[in-house]
Amino acid sequence: MLRARGSGRRPVMLAIAGDSAAGKTTLTRGLVQCLGADRMTAVCVDDYHRYDRAERSGKPFTALHPDCNHIDIMEQHLQLLSMGEPILKPVYDHSTGELVRPELVEPRDFVIVEGLLPLHTRMARACFDITVYLDPPEPLRHSWKVRRDCAKRGYTPEQVMAELDRREPESAAYIRPQRKHADIVVRFAPVAGRLDPPGTPLSAELLLRPTIDHPDLADVLDSGPAGTGADRTETAMHLRLHRDTDGRPVDALHVHGYVSPEESQVVKKAILEHLGPRAGTALSDPGVLGQLGDAGTSDPLAITQLLLLYHLLDADHRQAA
Amino acid sequence: MLRARGSGRRPVMLAIAGDSAAGKTTLTRGLVQCLGADRMTAVCVDDYHRYDRAERSGKPFTALHPDCNHIDIMEQHLQLLSMGEPILKPVYDHSTGELVRPELVEPRDFVIVEGLLPLHTRMARACFDITVYLDPPEPLRHSWKVRRDCAKRGYTPEQVMAELDRREPESAAYIRPQRKHADIVVRFAPVAGRLDPPGTPLSAELLLRPTIDHPDLADVLDSGPAGTGADRTETAMHLRLHRDTDGRPVDALHVHGYVSPEESQVVKKAILEHLGPRAGTALSDPGVLGQLGDAGTSDPLAITQLLLLYHLLDADHRQAA
Repeated sequence: MLRARGSGRRPVMLAIAGDSAAGKTTLTRGLVQCLGADRMTAVCVDDYHRYDRAERSGKPFTALHPDCNHIDIMEQHLQLLSMGEPILKPVYDHSTGELVRPELVEPRDFVIVEGLLPLHTRMARACFDITVYLDPPEPLRHSWKVRRDCAKRGYTPEQVMAELDRREPESAAYIRPQRKHADIVVRFAPVAGRLDPPGTPLSAELLLRPTIDHPDLADVLDSGPAGTGADRTETAMHLRLHRDTDGRPVDALHVHGYVSPEESQVVKKAILEHLGPRAGTALSDPGVLGQLGDAGTSDPLAITQLLLLYHLLDADHRQAA
Repeated sequence: MLRARGSGRRPVMLAIAGDSAAGKTTLTRGLVQCLGADRMTAVCVDDYHRYDRAERSGKPFTALHPDCNHIDIMEQHLQLLSMGEPILKPVYDHSTGELVRPELVEPRDFVIVEGLLPLHTRMARACFDITVYLDPPEPLRHSWKVRRDCAKRGYTPEQVMAELDRREPESAAYIRPQRKHADIVVRFAPVAGRLDPPGTPLSAELLLRPTIDHPDLADVLDSGPAGTGADRTETAMHLRLHRDTDGRPVDALHVHGYVSPEESQVVKKAILEHLGPRAGTALSDPGVLGQLGDAGTSDPLAITQLLLLYHLLDADHRQAA
């Protein structure tokens, strides 16, 4: 009954789920810049609060709790966007803690939905072509949240740490369980046991689940079985067959922070080649990939973003076919 | 793809369209009271403003203009309600002229949608089981608007008259054309050429289009052809075959303001009898019908409301069958 877009094409939908300060905005920014804002709609689904800050203060749960959010309306809006329909999205003002005037969101060719709970329900998950969960080690995420909330939202470190403690039971109950529903789990972290020079970017570990078709990178990557030699575990990038924490098989792509520009270029080129000629016209500027919030750059981030762009363009291509 | 209500039943949808101060709220109030607020959801669709008052002041059109409203979102929300889905409805604060926090609206068994433009587009009209247009004579509506806006919104009569002048071209272009899409056109007006005592309620003229099945009232009403005798035109209630202003055939039910309680009771009873036994359990208190905003009562209004209740219950019955 609801109409599709005039073009008859549905947008490609990408979810980026993760806890507060897990890096969602940093990951999203490069994707929007690279595909171009005229083709990309970025939506944050953390504004579906049922209560404003004053109302919430008397409730026994934090803003993370599904009962604290209009999850049914979030699902409905994700469905509408996935059908190419506009939505009037609620808006929460973080500075005042008030729910304010909603905003019109019209889906372009690609829709990136980032937030705390986009993969919480089956109905919401069904709206996405590609699902990502950001899974940094908790101590690292805590330090990111302290830095951001103190710099941009005027809190003290003690306030932020207290809030993290208060949220932990609901993070465990509602945020982290989304990890198992992601096609790709992204973990940025320092490599254990290495003493890289200051300024070395974090390494990326990407779990690539067989729920979507990933580009075949075995030719350009060290992809032997784990533990066949000391040299193998030392390579800056490698692909390993792996069992996830729940025992399910998964490919694990490691991109270490100390990867050389030449090495990372080989992988980037391989991903672009898998896309074929459409990559060249679709990506307005691959040079914007890998930019960190504090103006540094990271090859592990750039490769992560390029892999997501591969999936966005591949899904778009398959829909058009 | 969007889910229906748990019960599997869709709500019955009634539209009440009409210009500002045409009597929509007065008509709606009795319906909600009579069926019970627990079974009825009343929605005003005049809050889908694209611009707030400050933004609008620089635009070449008034708030009536479709371009000034999120008509596509209004259509979408009407479709969702008609499927039994909740919506997060925008809210416009008339006192401040600002768009504020949206509100959750969950459809109950019956949904009454009143406003300026609910019948503006084909897609919106398709959402309704019954459509009504309120069509008072313009001088009467102007006096109602002056009275209300001065008493409740703090304007002077001169300000209200100036606003009516400013809106007239858009009323003519967008509001009044909805009249032709209504199943029932309701006109409350004094009877021309009569000198009824002060306090006599306005008469009601109801055009009953053959687009829905009306209860057969020919047995209890004077329903002879027009002009067969002076006595006929003098009866307090009558049903006439009529040509509408566009030439289309229509039944015209007149209920004059001076109708006696005994006469109106006969018609009310006939409508209830057409509903059969379900009328008794469905109507919590038919005594609330006919109440005017200023605390008077009107039998023509009561009969109009009872006819709409007939259609609501009849549509509900047919959906359940």
